[in-house]
Amino acid sequence: MAERKIVSGLERVFNPESVAVIGASHTFGKWGHLILSNILAGGYQGKIFPVNPKEKEICGLTVYRDTVDIPGPVDLAFVTTPASTVLSVLASCAEKGIKGVVMITSGFSETGEDGRRLEKEVASFCLKNGLILIGPNTMGIIHPQAGLFATGSHTRPREGKVAFISQSGNLGLQLIHWAEQQGIGVSLFVGSGNEAMLTCTDYLEYLEDDPGTDIVILYIESVGDGRRFIETVGRVNRVKPVIVLKGGRSEAGQAAAASHTGSMAGNALLFKAACRQAGLLDVSVPSTLLDLSAGFSSLPWPAGNRVGIVTLGGGWGVVTADQCGEKGLAVPEIPRSIVDTISKYLPPFWSHGNPVDLVGTRDREVPIVAVEELLKWDGIDAVITLGIVGRTELVRSLVQSTRLVDPTISPEFLDSVEAFATGYEKRYIESIVELMERYEKPVLGVSLAKTDEGTVRPVDGRRYSAVFYKTPENAVEVLSRMVEYQRFVRGR
Amino acid sequence: MAERKIVSGLERVFNPESVAVIGASHTFGKWGHLILSNILAGGYQGKIFPVNPKEKEICGLTVYRDTVDIPGPVDLAFVTTPASTVLSVLASCAEKGIKGVVMITSGFSETGEDGRRLEKEVASFCLKNGLILIGPNTMGIIHPQAGLFATGSHTRPREGKVAFISQSGNLGLQLIHWAEQQGIGVSLFVGSGNEAMLTCTDYLEYLEDDPGTDIVILYIESVGDGRRFIETVGRVNRVKPVIVLKGGRSEAGQAAAASHTGSMAGNALLFKAACRQAGLLDVSVPSTLLDLSAGFSSLPWPAGNRVGIVTLGGGWGVVTADQCGEKGLAVPEIPRSIVDTISKYLPPFWSHGNPVDLVGTRDREVPIVAVEELLKWDGIDAVITLGIVGRTELVRSLVQSTRLVDPTISPEFLDSVEAFATGYEKRYIESIVELMERYEKPVLGVSLAKTDEGTVRPVDGRRYSAVFYKTPENAVEVLSRMVEYQRFVRGR
Repeated sequence: MAERKIVSGLERVFNPESVAVIGASHTFGKWGHLILSNILAGGYQGKIFPVNPKEKEICGLTVYRDTVDIPGPVDLAFVTTPASTVLSVLASCAEKGIKGVVMITSGFSETGEDGRRLEKEVASFCLKNGLILIGPNTMGIIHPQAGLFATGSHTRPREGKVAFISQSGNLGLQLIHWAEQQGIGVSLFVGSGNEAMLTCTDYLEYLEDDPGTDIVILYIESVGDGRRFIETVGRVNRVKPVIVLKGGRSEAGQAAAASHTGSMAGNALLFKAACRQAGLLDVSVPSTLLDLSAGFSSLPWPAGNRVGIVTLGGGWGVVTADQCGEKGLAVPEIPRSIVDTISKYLPPFWSHGNPVDLVGTRDREVPIVAVEELLKWDGIDAVITLGIVGRTELVRSLVQSTRLVDPTISPEFLDSVEAFATGYEKRYIESIVELMERYEKPVLGVSLAKTDEGTVRPVDGRRYSAVFYKTPENAVEVLSRMVEYQRFVRGR
Repeated sequence: MAERKIVSGLERVFNPESVAVIGASHTFGKWGHLILSNILAGGYQGKIFPVNPKEKEICGLTVYRDTVDIPGPVDLAFVTTPASTVLSVLASCAEKGIKGVVMITSGFSETGEDGRRLEKEVASFCLKNGLILIGPNTMGIIHPQAGLFATGSHTRPREGKVAFISQSGNLGLQLIHWAEQQGIGVSLFVGSGNEAMLTCTDYLEYLEDDPGTDIVILYIESVGDGRRFIETVGRVNRVKPVIVLKGGRSEAGQAAAASHTGSMAGNALLFKAACRQAGLLDVSVPSTLLDLSAGFSSLPWPAGNRVGIVTLGGGWGVVTADQCGEKGLAVPEIPRSIVDTISKYLPPFWSHGNPVDLVGTRDREVPIVAVEELLKWDGIDAVITLGIVGRTELVRSLVQSTRLVDPTISPEFLDSVEAFATGYEKRYIESIVELMERYEKPVLGVSLAKTDEGTVRPVDGRRYSAVFYKTPENAVEVLSRMVEYQRFVRGR
């Protein structure tokens, strides 16, 4: 547990004007090369100083023999040298007046008694010398706002409002990789590693006041100071939703966690109860963390649990309604006036109710009309749409095989069909985002497609982003959690 | 409900030597063009006869004025003309001696009383004249073995052992589209439509004896003859797993289903109980149908519920062990001898237990060694591996940014790194498939990546295929369902 002033010093650490990479290497695949090349390729705009007594130049940068040889101040150092060297490395860092150290180096408490002793020495040296220590045995940090991508994995999510704190480096980085693929904006990633000085609870305290962060994602296996953690996380959660995945919930998982981060079993049920009291959103699988991140950071909050469903095909409406029912969401009947408006656009055999089944229509206007009619009505708090965006994938197969077998249909016409489908999706997304802003109600899209463009689709100049999940269960889960969080916040 | 001899006639209908498309059109986007161009582009090898009194040639094929004008016999007709014409169309079909009709045409019982009456007339005409009727209001059929892709959606899964029967056309076709993307082999797809003559139960009876089908996927909203359905599905399930998604489980879903397929609520709980007694695998979301299809059709069956986990990173091992615990799978401790063998390849701080945490090793041999050690041991029934295949995606980002920032690393070297990663995955997959054959135990892969190459990775000449899910929860769910089905079958 770190003191308050150390936590407040994190702001400078995450926004360094200059960084050193101690143990920088020219060997592809080594940590000292992975981190340095990532910082460079990520476009970090501050000064970068590689340190290695045996090198002259790496990636076109001058290399310094020792940290103390670096000309000018250094805010943050990344350390990748072996565990046996870190005490002398830290001495140089202290002498140089460095503010913080991200210690990638492993071989500490995770390896046994000797490592544990060394780790304690490292932590107490840092404390005594006013050095902020992240790690050791961390996979690094990412702070897109500072253009700082300093992990071994070369994945670079866009800047946004979601902070990820993870006690597992590989799991955390995989989440960040998915965040990048899904278009989820990230404010901060920290692999907390062995937490010799700063713990998850400290990062939470930092995030509480971080204006760049609206939502916190937490992967934890164990917390040293359970009471302080629960107090802190509960306080943060009142203003910023905290979404937690706890590793080691089952007996088998606890055994695995014990050998992974040395987590003592603790009482999973007790932890769960404490989380519930604090109103935390706990999830049981990592991918849900991403789904919630996408929705929470992109959509207006629903005022209640009443859902309107707009679907291109009846079957999808049925399974989505079922899932709503099973997750505590209501799918109310809609008034005559809405039915009448939508009827103007559809053949007489459409569903005449909620779910609004557009019976496969190719009319371009009615999906938007239906969504707006539902949003307008005060009996609905949110809308889920299915299959409207995502059709392009199917259009593409159709166009492709038509090219093969029907020479009477001109290639130009087929090009225009494909272009129209893509253009339509773009316009549709713009309309949805505009409608969310006008009515302050969330619209969750389900694409049913691979959505290579990502889950989150931002629109320039708009407060909210459109969100398209692959399947209805993703959308229903996210919406039910939004309702749950709103209830908790308002019910207090 | 159809008579037994009609069901047996389905074999000819699904393996036609010649087909007619009645209502064939030259207009892109119309059903009469969608179906015809799909049959052509799909490579159907039988004769194809378009029928339309107003056309001379479509897609390079001679068009016939009337069905009776077609020279030579016709086994199967696809009908896309308006509902008002179908009785005379069917008269022609009967006169021509056609065996079966896939009636795409909508506007029957789903539109109200008049439609219901017409549908009855259609069905009784077909029965009287020995015409097998699929639909009406169906989105078509797919029978890869016959090279017959006859739906409006131009998606063409590879041939395989999984049959899909769906009361919702759009949902069913979406599942088939996903099956294609995931590499799942399909034996048959039928959109059962309004089921004027043939019902889901009839298709089940057909599949019971179909040598091409090992696994049956069913999407249903309602069954007319509940008792016969339950009897039939129970009988089929004893020899071929039947995986069911029932639409209309919740009140909201039932309301939606009523307006979709006219399904009467029935009693969802009663249905569920009956399914359980029949040992059916019921699922609540469509994507699970695909996950189960992939695993059931590719892997050997597990003899019990004991799982070995092999992971590149500790966090993933922990969450996977948790999920196993929550789904009734055991993650037993492994004997000293296995620990010793694996220890030869890994640094001393590896997990020394199950999950086997390979602590991010880059050793290429140990993942295979670990998997084989576990499979060999009679205390394990199945293995789940995480992150071994899928790394290529991360290697690619790394290579790409290294190219940008480090001119001292040659492009040829970076090419070789990427090629090696891809080649390694291929060899790894071959080993896994070979090991499954040798030990007759399933190995479920988790890629943690987008896996554009699909979930199922067949290897030439091998009985089983490798399977890679994106997330551990998919793999754990599939394995737990395999265990459940095996228990049911053996427990009888």
